[in-house]
Amino acid sequence: MSSIDTTLSPLFAKIDELKPQFIQRLTDAVAIPSVSSDETLRPKVFAMADFLKEELTKLGADDITIKDLGVQPPPDGKLIGRGSTDDKGPVMGWLNSLQAHKELGLELPVNIVFCFEGMEESGSIGLDTLIAQEAKKYFKEVESVCISDNYWLGTKKPVLTYGLRGCNYYQIIIKGPGADLHSGIFGGVIHEPMTDLVNVMSKLVDINGNILIPGVNEMVAPVTEKEASLYKDIEFDVDELNLAAGSNTAIYQNKKDILMHRWRFPSLSLHGIEGAFSGAGAKTVIPSKVVGKFSIRTVPDMDSKKLDELVINFCNEKFKELKSPNQFTTELIHDGAYWVSDPFNNEFTAAKLATEKVWGIEPDLTREGGSIPITLTFEKELGANVLLLPMGKGDDGAHSINEKLNIPNYIEGTKTLSAYLHYYGATK
Amino acid sequence: MSSIDTTLSPLFAKIDELKPQFIQRLTDAVAIPSVSSDETLRPKVFAMADFLKEELTKLGADDITIKDLGVQPPPDGKLIGRGSTDDKGPVMGWLNSLQAHKELGLELPVNIVFCFEGMEESGSIGLDTLIAQEAKKYFKEVESVCISDNYWLGTKKPVLTYGLRGCNYYQIIIKGPGADLHSGIFGGVIHEPMTDLVNVMSKLVDINGNILIPGVNEMVAPVTEKEASLYKDIEFDVDELNLAAGSNTAIYQNKKDILMHRWRFPSLSLHGIEGAFSGAGAKTVIPSKVVGKFSIRTVPDMDSKKLDELVINFCNEKFKELKSPNQFTTELIHDGAYWVSDPFNNEFTAAKLATEKVWGIEPDLTREGGSIPITLTFEKELGANVLLLPMGKGDDGAHSINEKLNIPNYIEGTKTLSAYLHYYGATK
Repeated sequence: MSSIDTTLSPLFAKIDELKPQFIQRLTDAVAIPSVSSDETLRPKVFAMADFLKEELTKLGADDITIKDLGVQPPPDGKLIGRGSTDDKGPVMGWLNSLQAHKELGLELPVNIVFCFEGMEESGSIGLDTLIAQEAKKYFKEVESVCISDNYWLGTKKPVLTYGLRGCNYYQIIIKGPGADLHSGIFGGVIHEPMTDLVNVMSKLVDINGNILIPGVNEMVAPVTEKEASLYKDIEFDVDELNLAAGSNTAIYQNKKDILMHRWRFPSLSLHGIEGAFSGAGAKTVIPSKVVGKFSIRTVPDMDSKKLDELVINFCNEKFKELKSPNQFTTELIHDGAYWVSDPFNNEFTAAKLATEKVWGIEPDLTREGGSIPITLTFEKELGANVLLLPMGKGDDGAHSINEKLNIPNYIEGTKTLSAYLHYYGATK
Repeated sequence: MSSIDTTLSPLFAKIDELKPQFIQRLTDAVAIPSVSSDETLRPKVFAMADFLKEELTKLGADDITIKDLGVQPPPDGKLIGRGSTDDKGPVMGWLNSLQAHKELGLELPVNIVFCFEGMEESGSIGLDTLIAQEAKKYFKEVESVCISDNYWLGTKKPVLTYGLRGCNYYQIIIKGPGADLHSGIFGGVIHEPMTDLVNVMSKLVDINGNILIPGVNEMVAPVTEKEASLYKDIEFDVDELNLAAGSNTAIYQNKKDILMHRWRFPSLSLHGIEGAFSGAGAKTVIPSKVVGKFSIRTVPDMDSKKLDELVINFCNEKFKELKSPNQFTTELIHDGAYWVSDPFNNEFTAAKLATEKVWGIEPDLTREGGSIPITLTFEKELGANVLLLPMGKGDDGAHSINEKLNIPNYIEGTKTLSAYLHYYGATK
């Protein structure tokens, strides 16, 4: 056995031994409804922070209190609950690793600085500034950043993620009457903001996901032959996509098209309308002010500012064509940059070894369709390499009602994080 | 003085004397949040019924309790509150009239049967059946029906209403993925139900309110010369419309076009979308199931069933053109028929005299754009003439947040209802 193997063997055994405690730890964490996108739950984000503080404190002692807060692992080996895979599972994985080291009396191979943030679903406002402020203080001498905020591409094979799409989120605001009106009295005699909005929104994207705003697709980096050849070895097929989506409504039927459109082409989604009737049943309202929401996932080499200009000008133009007397504005309300890294640096190499050690298979090198804007901030502000090391599977349903984390992914994921520390430490 | 004048003079004086009590009665009624379209407030609909029962009981005694429930008349002569003009003001008007008669020891000139219903905003489900069931029982020998559920056309001149549009309410249901998805992971690779929905909804009506569904406009009764000539004497202009709408977003600038499009042409309004993101801020969701809501205001001689067929076939056809794999359904969820009466029968003649007596001006004979489907049910089931006798003004903002009733309309309206009873009684 190599020296790292000598270390990892008892460490992995300890992790297996502690499995019930680790499951309870995540159960407790998920039971805190710290969903930042729901403003009424914001105090729970603080509660979650308190929980982490307490757990970390406890890792210096043996008196870990087990609490039953009602979220129990079901018998089929899944931990179900909002936040289980994104992002409490991986966060607990780091705590679990500390505990395993502690109980074995094993020294950590590297110094660790943690940064836990609870407002990612609400745009992580303030985090960029904090990282910049703390770059030479709290984050002083950090050489490498590992972000736990992604998942395997599918359900069968682990991956390492070296790229993310960005996201520019827009809203179209249309104001007409001074207040909501009754469609019996005003229907047919005034210009209705909803009619204008639906008209403009229908011109942004076609049914096959093609963005119809001129100039947007032209900013996308061309596909090189080398890149095109990378897709064929990746473990993925349309069935994986359909399984994760819960439907057979894929636009593309072959792996390469699916992955390219998820990773390296932009997409435009219409998310909804604020101010219109959104309840069940029949309400005969003419909404006076409606706000259409849509976002564009961005990729290299799109320029965020130029994109805003193209989008806003296009919406203005389409509205102008309608000759409606209503008031019209389009605005960017949030943007996060895309990110692409070198998948062959020390961090990715150590992560690859760790993943192989735990899962017995070489991970696929993938990109992701989602956005983690803070990735770029860490890279720029700390001058550090960033690694995304996933724990959960592609069908975990992050952010959705039935979000889950499979217990094997939680436990083996804890081992992967632990092994990564040792492999990365060995490069120093 | 005629004998009716001899009666009305002390009756009107009594109504003026009771004004503070009448205002308090409506204040108390409006303070009960009996908004049936909000399901959580349904118990308050029962509370409102209890209130009416109690008030009516009290009208046989002198011990009227005054309650302060926090909704007070502001100093500018308006009673502001949801339900003030639609429909608690007119309902209290009837109670006020009973009280004035009672306090004067004046016998009512006709027998009155009341029917109070609290679910009109939710389609008055069950009321049709009830009226049919009670036609020969509770409603036995009712010769004339007076409905208190409309307003003046504008703000300056009282009206009598002899026609109403109907309303067919539809929803388009589009189902895609098994659950809401993250637009980062699935944006660009699956067919999004919102894209389909916005596309189909954009094809129903143009920006000038023209219905784009073939065959619909062809069912509308042609405008006769006689009808065309009726509009010029009606007190109304585009400024009244703009004032009521709180904007300068009228489609038509002249009285005749506005009134015809409000009263005798159909209109199509897009009300909203259920299932999509409808909150403030940015949420990057791909909604899995979206339900688009729209309704068509119907007029003579549209056939409701044929309209359903045209609408549903058109939506199906437009969706089919998209070649989307998502599941698509369009359905009627509520319909109410239009209604037109003879504005020169006994009821309208008595109402005209009553209005002239109180307001000193001949009322305009108008139709309304809204729907009161129960009008037709009363007419058919009881074989009775139906009169719509309005109390409030056209800018009262029925169903909206700042709904109001001007105090003069409330008090003079109470007199109008009272006088109507006497003029109508004199025809018997």
